[in-house]
This record gives sequence, C-alpha cells and structure tokens, in this order.
Amino acid sequence: MKTKKLIVCGAGNVGRSFLRLVADRAAAIRAKHGLNIEVGCVVDVGGAAHAGDGGLPLPAFLDFLTAGGRPEDFPGYGQKGLTGVAAIENYSFDALVETTPTNLKTGEPAYSFVTAAIAKGMDVVSANKGPFVLHFAELNKLAAASRSRLFISAATGAALPTLDIGKFSTVGADITAIEGILNGTTNFILTKMYFEKTSYADALKEAQAMGIAETDPTLDVEGYDTRNKIILVANTLFKTSFGIDDVPVTGITKITYDDIDRAAKNGTVLKLVATAELAGGKVTLSVGPKALDKNHPLATINYSEKGITYTTDTMGQITVLGGKSSPVGAAAALLKDVIHTHIFSV
Amino acid sequence: MKTKKLIVCGAGNVGRSFLRLVADRAAAIRAKHGLNIEVGCVVDVGGAAHAGDGGLPLPAFLDFLTAGGRPEDFPGYGQKGLTGVAAIENYSFDALVETTPTNLKTGEPAYSFVTAAIAKGMDVVSANKGPFVLHFAELNKLAAASRSRLFISAATGAALPTLDIGKFSTVGADITAIEGILNGTTNFILTKMYFEKTSYADALKEAQAMGIAETDPTLDVEGYDTRNKIILVANTLFKTSFGIDDVPVTGITKITYDDIDRAAKNGTVLKLVATAELAGGKVTLSVGPKALDKNHPLATINYSEKGITYTTDTMGQITVLGGKSSPVGAAAALLKDVIHTHIFSV
Repeated sequence: MKTKKLIVCGAGNVGRSFLRLVADRAAAIRAKHGLNIEVGCVVDVGGAAHAGDGGLPLPAFLDFLTAGGRPEDFPGYGQKGLTGVAAIENYSFDALVETTPTNLKTGEPAYSFVTAAIAKGMDVVSANKGPFVLHFAELNKLAAASRSRLFISAATGAALPTLDIGKFSTVGADITAIEGILNGTTNFILTKMYFEKTSYADALKEAQAMGIAETDPTLDVEGYDTRNKIILVANTLFKTSFGIDDVPVTGITKITYDDIDRAAKNGTVLKLVATAELAGGKVTLSVGPKALDKNHPLATINYSEKGITYTTDTMGQITVLGGKSSPVGAAAALLKDVIHTHIFSV
Repeated sequence: MKTKKLIVCGAGNVGRSFLRLVADRAAAIRAKHGLNIEVGCVVDVGGAAHAGDGGLPLPAFLDFLTAGGRPEDFPGYGQKGLTGVAAIENYSFDALVETTPTNLKTGEPAYSFVTAAIAKGMDVVSANKGPFVLHFAELNKLAAASRSRLFISAATGAALPTLDIGKFSTVGADITAIEGILNGTTNFILTKMYFEKTSYADALKEAQAMGIAETDPTLDVEGYDTRNKIILVANTLFKTSFGIDDVPVTGITKITYDDIDRAAKNGTVLKLVATAELAGGKVTLSVGPKALDKNHPLATINYSEKGITYTTDTMGQITVLGGKSSPVGAAAALLKDVIHTHIFSV
C-alpha cells in the first residue's frame, strides 16, 4: 500500500467537494488501486488545519467547515496564519492539490504554492488555471528540473477528459489539430440562439438567470476562458509556450441571430471554437466563432456541454464530450489526477 | 532509457502495420518518452524471424515481407518452425504483441501465446479478442498471479479509446452504466437505412460493395462483434466474468425501414447498442437495437463511426467517438498500449 499525503490549498466549493470525495472514497481507492490518500493539511486565507501522521479526520473537519468553522480554528489541528508556502516548506507532502480562485493577473496565491511545491519535488494537481496560463513554460522547466509532475485536468474542462485523450489515448500517434468547444456558457448562448431564434442579449440574460453565466460574463463571452483552456492543452501537448497575448481571440458578443441563420442555411452550425493546428512544424492557436459542418463531431454538442476533437495521423479523429462542470466535477477531476500521480510512472 | 523488447505474433495486415509504425516512430518515441522499442521476434504460421540483442532490422524485414518473403526465411534471422510458444519460452521479451486472426471457438493460436507470455511474467498487448472473450477471468487470474498486465485497447474498438475512458479518465468516479455503438458495419447499415430510406438488404449490399461488411456478415449483423467488445469492456471495468453465452443479443437483420421511421417519428434514432448497467451491485449486459433519444450523445454517431458513453456518479456522462478502425488504426492502438506498458506503473 502506497500513501500519498496531500496538502489542499483552498477550502471553497471545489476544495470542499474534493475533501468530501476523499472522505467518501478513500477506502474504495485503497482496495482498488492500492493507494492510501491522506490529507495532511488544508490551507485557506486565514491559516490552515494541519495534521501529523495519519492525516486530518476528514468527516469531522468537513462537519466543522459546514457549520461555518475556519480551517485555522479546527480544534487540535488549526494553525492561525499558517500559509500554503510555509506549510509546504516546513512539512512533508507528496502532492499539492490547488483549488484557490483563479487569478489571471498575477496567478497568486496559487503561483507561490505551486512553485514552493515544485521546489520540494512534489507533484502538483491543480484546478486553478492562473499559474499555468501565465507561467506555463517556466513552471514546466522548474518541474522538469526537480522531477515534479504537473496535472491540470481539472483546469482544462473539469470532468471532461480534455487533456487525457491527447496525453494517453493518442500516445504514439501525431496530433495535427485540436478543435474544442471548451466553454459551456458561450455554447449555451449560441445553442439557445440557434434553436430558439433569440437574440444574443436575450440568450445571455437567460443564461444569467439560470446561473450558467456570471453577472459579469466577460471572461466567457469574450472567449478568454476558451483561450485559457486551449493554451493549457496546446502547451501541454505540443510543448509550446503560448501566453495570453499570443492567441487571437474573438468572442460571441457581436453574433446575431442572422449570423446563426445564415450559417444554418449553408449547412453549418456556428460555435465558439478553439483551434490549435500544427502545420510545417509550427503550431497556431486561435479562438473565435466558426461555422462547423453539420457532420463535424462538435456540431451536435449543444447547450452547456463541452467537447474536444483531436485529429491524428494514425488514429483518425477522436472526439470526447460531456463531463460535469460543477464543483463536484472539478473535484472528481482532481481526485482522478491524484490517482494518476500513483498509476503513472512518468 | 528503458528498452521494451517485443515479440509480435502474426504478420498479417495489423502485424505489419504495427511493425511499420515502430520502424517509423521508434526514434521519436525514444526522444519523447524515454522508451526504446525493440522487436526481438516476429512469428507467423511457418516459423519466425528472431533477433538477438538490438532487435530485428525492421525496414529491411518489412521490405522482405512486402516482396512476398516469409518471416522464417528472412536471411540471418529466419527460423523455420519456430512457434510463438517456443519463442516465448526459450527467449526473453518484455511484452507480447498479439495480432493473429481472432478465433472465437478456441481462441487459438493466440490463447497459447498469451498464456505462455503470462507464465513468463510478460505484459500482453493484444488486438485479438479471442482469448479474452473466451477466457477473460482465467487470464486475468493468471496475469495477477505472475504480475503480467493485459492491454486490450486494440481489441475493443481499434483507435477509439473505448477502454481508456473507463480505466483512466473516470478513475475515482463510479461508473454506473456504459452504452456503446461498438460496430461500424451495423451502424453504417442503420444510418444508410435512416438517411436514404433503403431496406436492410440494400444497405447491407452497399456495405459489402464498399468493403465495410464481410461476404458473411453474421459476426457483425447478428450483434456478436458488439457483444464481444462489451464483454471485454465490462469485464475489465467491473471485474466481472461474462462469457459469450451470458449476454442476450439481438442483431439488426430483422430491422425494417418502417421500424426506423417509427423511431424517428417518436423523436428517437434506432441504433445497435451494447449496454452494461450496474444496479443493486449487479452488472447486466445486453446488445440489441435501441431507440435513442435524439439528444443522446450516441444518437448522432453515423455511418461506420463508433462511440461509447460512460455514465458516472461524480463526472456525469462522458462520451468518446471516432477513431480509425483500419489495420493502421488497430496498429496505432497496439503502439499506444506498448507505450502504456512503459508509462503506467500499475
């Protein structure tokens, strides 16, 4: 039985969902995978709950959080002011599970946690895009030097195995193109407009009313979230170093029902598509509305579903779609990656 | 750099395609994965070509085969009468790559090769369904006892990563149901009938003319190939021991255009669907025509495409579709699994 001792940074929705999954499934994972998952530390803004050997008593800790308690106040374990960096530097863990909110300006606080974890040779499992979108090449270089491994499934589409197909299922084949519908909010709006002949403004309003779109929908509707995900996917698979300024992005805010109708009359469907293409040894990324042929495997991905198509030389086209994008879906992707730290030898 | 020395059984279309991929990609795989793939022996019906250290000179060997030569006559390496079992017993390899024709009565000759390889603690990578459909539980028990690992991606849908989603991408989640369109021939026929309002007989004739269906289409149209694949998928993922007599199967030979039209009028699409369901701790398998809701992720998989949908508790539904099903596609799946023997630690 191998033990992986984790430090979890962030005790918000995704972090708590992850802890709940570990609490519920640890015994099953021990039996099935010979892997004992231990949560040694949970860090949030005011401090941390830290355990010695054996890990935190998760059910009691989760009850404490649910009742409004803060990690740093958890009796017997709480340490006020203990930061993620200090915990990583002073204690010993096998992997960091990063669930703090994404910050696309500085990547912080996650960037500091991730670099501290890499410096100690830990594996990093992250639902947070920030550090990787902003510092992909640097973090990969640091990780290679200290034999850390970076797992970012949860940051690239939650439960949709966006990256797995490229990393594992097409290994040995050459990927020549990647196309993705990587943002559920924009796909919901475009689908709504298509099927119900509504305007962009009405579709957005409905998405907001349903909680699918944020009050400030900029990140989604301007295509930035889609861009961030294709940067992570392309940089991982093509070993490129695209940053946020290297990708031409067009959002969907100027799409009218007429555009959608015109596309339909040409036998196509208008979708917000992220593309990564390899041609002549050069990788090009772009994000924008694209009229997909009705037979394109992404053309029938509707409402808030996401999907990604890999075009390869020897395996043809492979498309994966679906996957829960709730906090539980993201937590499930984190748990998957934690198990991957165990089942992958490289 | 780690070396994996292979014995390849079968030098037909799939075997040769695999050797060609190894010849073309060995250097790239060394650079990318730190894995040196060496083909130590290629066995066919009359004997084998066997190399000492360093492996067979693949480009010259492939030229020799293309010119009509037999492995046992390959100058400097050929051994008349050397069987797969004798080669496995007398020489040393890391993995068996099984590409002989599937035999669903006895599983031979592959069954003997696979058991010999397991007895020596080798990994087994197989495009051949026979031994696994007929002797799944026994082979898994033997493999567990001798620390062999069984990789059967190529036997469960060629380049479509049918099994990968269940094994890797949903790991940590509980799979509650699997539904698949796992046979391209029958899906081609049903799609043809649906879109072109043709009879079953006419659609079958066209599939045969196009080389999509065999002269004797029984294995496909009676649902047996679909059954064999769902047996392999379910037994792998649910640790069950279903055999070919344990699965109720209905083929598509009695489907009329009227059936398809009636389904369409109810907002559904008639597909040949393999189902594995877990309920109350019990797994049930079945294969038969099923009217899928038009929004079901498998409903838009048309013509000779295949796909599989996993329903899970924490990740929602995940569907993968596509993948070349040619000999090259199967060979690419074999190459993927050979690389998986290297990148997976369990």
